[in-house]
Amino acid sequence: MSNYKTNKWRLKLQEIIYEADTPAGKLFDVVLLITILASIILVMLESVDSIDKNFHDFLNISEWVITILFSFEYIARILTVRKPLNYIFSFYGIVDLLSTIPKYISLIFGGVHALAALRALRLLRVFRILKLARYLGASNTLITALKASKAKIAVFLFAVVIVAIILGTIMYLVEGEENGFTNIPKSVYWCIVTLTTVGFGDIAPQTPLGQFIASLVMILGYGIIAVPTGIVSAEYTNQNKSDKKNEPKNNNTPIQINSQCCSNCLNETHRDDAEFCFKCGCNLHHE
Amino acid sequence: MSNYKTNKWRLKLQEIIYEADTPAGKLFDVVLLITILASIILVMLESVDSIDKNFHDFLNISEWVITILFSFEYIARILTVRKPLNYIFSFYGIVDLLSTIPKYISLIFGGVHALAALRALRLLRVFRILKLARYLGASNTLITALKASKAKIAVFLFAVVIVAIILGTIMYLVEGEENGFTNIPKSVYWCIVTLTTVGFGDIAPQTPLGQFIASLVMILGYGIIAVPTGIVSAEYTNQNKSDKKNEPKNNNTPIQINSQCCSNCLNETHRDDAEFCFKCGCNLHHE
Amino acid sequence: MSNYKTNKWRLKLQEIIYEADTPAGKLFDVVLLITILASIILVMLESVDSIDKNFHDFLNISEWVITILFSFEYIARILTVRKPLNYIFSFYGIVDLLSTIPKYISLIFGGVHALAALRALRLLRVFRILKLARYLGASNTLITALKASKAKIAVFLFAVVIVAIILGTIMYLVEGEENGFTNIPKSVYWCIVTLTTVGFGDIAPQTPLGQFIASLVMILGYGIIAVPTGIVSAEYTNQNKSDKKNEPKNNNTPIQINSQCCSNCLNETHRDDAEFCFKCGCNLHHE
Amino acid sequence: MSNYKTNKWRLKLQEIIYEADTPAGKLFDVVLLITILASIILVMLESVDSIDKNFHDFLNISEWVITILFSFEYIARILTVRKPLNYIFSFYGIVDLLSTIPKYISLIFGGVHALAALRALRLLRVFRILKLARYLGASNTLITALKASKAKIAVFLFAVVIVAIILGTIMYLVEGEENGFTNIPKSVYWCIVTLTTVGFGDIAPQTPLGQFIASLVMILGYGIIAVPTGIVSAEYTNQNKSDKKNEPKNNNTPIQINSQCCSNCLNETHRDDAEFCFKCGCNLHHE
Repeated sequence: MSNYKTNKWRLKLQEIIYEADTPAGKLFDVVLLITILASIILVMLESVDSIDKNFHDFLNISEWVITILFSFEYIARILTVRKPLNYIFSFYGIVDLLSTIPKYISLIFGGVHALAALRALRLLRVFRILKLARYLGASNTLITALKASKAKIAVFLFAVVIVAIILGTIMYLVEGEENGFTNIPKSVYWCIVTLTTVGFGDIAPQTPLGQFIASLVMILGYGIIAVPTGIVSAEYTNQNKSDKKNEPKNNNTPIQINSQCCSNCLNETHRDDAEFCFKCGCNLHHE
Repeated sequence: MSNYKTNKWRLKLQEIIYEADTPAGKLFDVVLLITILASIILVMLESVDSIDKNFHDFLNISEWVITILFSFEYIARILTVRKPLNYIFSFYGIVDLLSTIPKYISLIFGGVHALAALRALRLLRVFRILKLARYLGASNTLITALKASKAKIAVFLFAVVIVAIILGTIMYLVEGEENGFTNIPKSVYWCIVTLTTVGFGDIAPQTPLGQFIASLVMILGYGIIAVPTGIVSAEYTNQNKSDKKNEPKNNNTPIQINSQCCSNCLNETHRDDAEFCFKCGCNLHHE
Repeated sequence: MSNYKTNKWRLKLQEIIYEADTPAGKLFDVVLLITILASIILVMLESVDSIDKNFHDFLNISEWVITILFSFEYIARILTVRKPLNYIFSFYGIVDLLSTIPKYISLIFGGVHALAALRALRLLRVFRILKLARYLGASNTLITALKASKAKIAVFLFAVVIVAIILGTIMYLVEGEENGFTNIPKSVYWCIVTLTTVGFGDIAPQTPLGQFIASLVMILGYGIIAVPTGIVSAEYTNQNKSDKKNEPKNNNTPIQINSQCCSNCLNETHRDDAEFCFKCGCNLHHE
Repeated sequence: MSNYKTNKWRLKLQEIIYEADTPAGKLFDVVLLITILASIILVMLESVDSIDKNFHDFLNISEWVITILFSFEYIARILTVRKPLNYIFSFYGIVDLLSTIPKYISLIFGGVHALAALRALRLLRVFRILKLARYLGASNTLITALKASKAKIAVFLFAVVIVAIILGTIMYLVEGEENGFTNIPKSVYWCIVTLTTVGFGDIAPQTPLGQFIASLVMILGYGIIAVPTGIVSAEYTNQNKSDKKNEPKNNNTPIQINSQCCSNCLNETHRDDAEFCFKCGCNLHHE
């Protein structure tokens, strides 16, 4: 570890892989994003029987190419980070491994269906790159508004679930097994389908009383859809206002956050002018 | 009744059961909440045939355990309250009894289906404990906003029902019995299904004219969904504003409400520093 | 007509039938409301085959009672109003006649199905009585907000229809007749069903391309539902604000409107202290 | 081109066709709008088999009349504009050609189905005339609000699509091919159908676990419908406010835009008092 600081190429690589401020880092992220999206489309196409039959070899080879690319990326991530174990057992470390390994396993055991679909986990990796989106600033107010109304939305959803259980039980008693409401959980499921105005129609009330209660459920669902909308609307309007009020008053330069990533603890929200990691005190520039 | 005040353990028990400020009271409420949720899940699972067959004994025994626990709680509530009849004939008193008794009846008459489902009433008991939620403060503004817009939402829902009846009758005339609109109530039911954008599809217009009218109904429903949302949004924004305005101006300490419960009249919204019940004048501390 | 003013009982009757300020007038409106609702329920029940078979005589007699009551009301309205022709050819005059006459026609021609359903027109009469609701003040702001955003909602709905026609035509080309999209109007109908998130499912895309386009349509519909809601929300918030601003500033007593009804021109929105009709100059009190 | 300026009738015609300020120009636009709508209804009716059989000749002749009218209009547009190629290769130029030509081709090759439907493109021409709507002012605030929240809605829709792919893949694994979730793309399609609360019901979960996950998806979809609504609401409220604030402060006369159209570059948003095109400097009045 003592020769870590002098190992220039490793530092360079770490900056490219984990950060997005340098042109090389941005390029890496864009290439990775495209590869991930391509691999997701591959997984989706493979699940379509008619496509799988006609283009099996092409899909298989593409899958191998992407798997090998991801393997290299995984190894590079382990090599460049100062504490590899931190990365390996982090959420994204596990996602990276699980989304790469199924293809190798298929070599030994043959294509296990459920295992292959594990590759869809790759989609979660998109979120790592989309930290980029954070710098676009577009969704900041939105996220703040959602966070501010989190507790209220939770209370609301809890109320919806309780209402669904009560009404679902009533519908089970009223309609009974002969009309598709075979048990209470299924009846509660139907109630959620109706309250949320989705309405698949695979189960539908047949008795007049059941249809009457269903009408009440629907009007209730129609009415309560107003609640989360009202909450978010109000919070969002407030966010917008406080944003505008703060702008002229705020004499301090707002803290600029860049995409620097501590090579020790992988923490990412450092100030633009930070020299040391605010979490572990490790030098960010390694000079 | 004269020896009531000296009866220390009864006071203690009353505080535990009816209030939520002491650690013991909180623990009691949490245990009760879990028991209620477990009993609800039991009722739901029992209604699933395949589960009932395989785990009948386990479900039966669990149900007996919970029934006995609830019986003890019911008896304790009657013993600790000063005027037991007030509790027994209160809404929650009746719910408590109705949700406990079916299992005992099944001993004598065997498992009556509809009776067993009465146990689902236990879910209503959740609301008693959720008075806790009131102290979380999360849903206060929400409830105030909903109360403020209650009259407007009622007018709106009444209008929706009238529109549904008129359009339902028209659809009955246009589509007729051969296309599933067998009578006016069913046609009105279809109309509510459509206006609320649920759309089961168990009944759907077949004639071109019927589909044209259905299109109008849907666009109308799509348009009027804006109304309750707009109402709640506006009220909620206003609530938020008045909340904020009141905060700096309000020099008085806001009234703190705790979960003290008058042992005489079961009233619950006492001030934190109250010594006597504001409804019946009864001493809250019993010293 | 010269003896009109002296005809006391006629004036009295006119006040009871057309106005709602006196106790007798209010009672009349409430009785009428109940009769209308009862008659609507009768029409609905008659359309249900099983009920019609078992209770045919009861339904028939009730229908005759209500028809005769409505006939008396219709005649009373004609007799008490100063210009009967104005009433007879007014919107409500025609509704009153059309909703009363089918039962008499059935005496001569037998029960014609479509004709009988004309009686559902009685529901429209509810709105006349619900002028009462205007005095409740609950829906005033709501109606103002809706009126203010009328033009915007019209533009929006026009855009929805154009989008539905374009996307409907595309779906017709993509899916074709073999998948239920038998012609362009039906395809447009499907598109409206989908855009408004109703989703009956009687027609559903089967080809992958069709399902892809359908996904876009749904997400589009999900997005644009925000527009009318946003419009009404904003207008409603503005209405609320201007209401509150006006309250303290407004030194004039707000104009009180009562339910007086000019016996000459049937105009209804007179000031509480009005002595003469503001439309035709006719004396309102007839003393 | 030198004799262009003196060619009075050509200038007149250009003003009528491309502008909407003169009575003749307005009349032209209204007639064109009616013709386009009539032609769209023709295309729709032609696709209905039963109507096509009975009224084939009438539809065919009407179609020819409209095609010839559109051809004249197309030629007039080319003749009156100063740089015909600019028009021919503009978006609307191509739409005009594509929506006119299929009928002529059908003379040579017979009625090709897909080609005939090209005529539905005529609907796009409606938008050209609806520049009129811009002057109605009704939709200005609306469009500004939508533009302001464009980025946020895009971020939101992107999140919806990612969620749909992840949940769709999970549902594919849980439900499998035997319950209609035959492949991942179809499963993602189902997920979008559910998230947007459309709910066709052509595919519906059958296993208890699948129904449980579906319930979560629905509640999630019900919750996130609040987000775009909240965004548009907030933006729209802000738009309304800034509109009102600007009105009294704004001392400058707002720039009046009329429907003048530069005959050289077809640019349309000129100031009312403009003498020369602000894009190409060409004289707008040609005197």
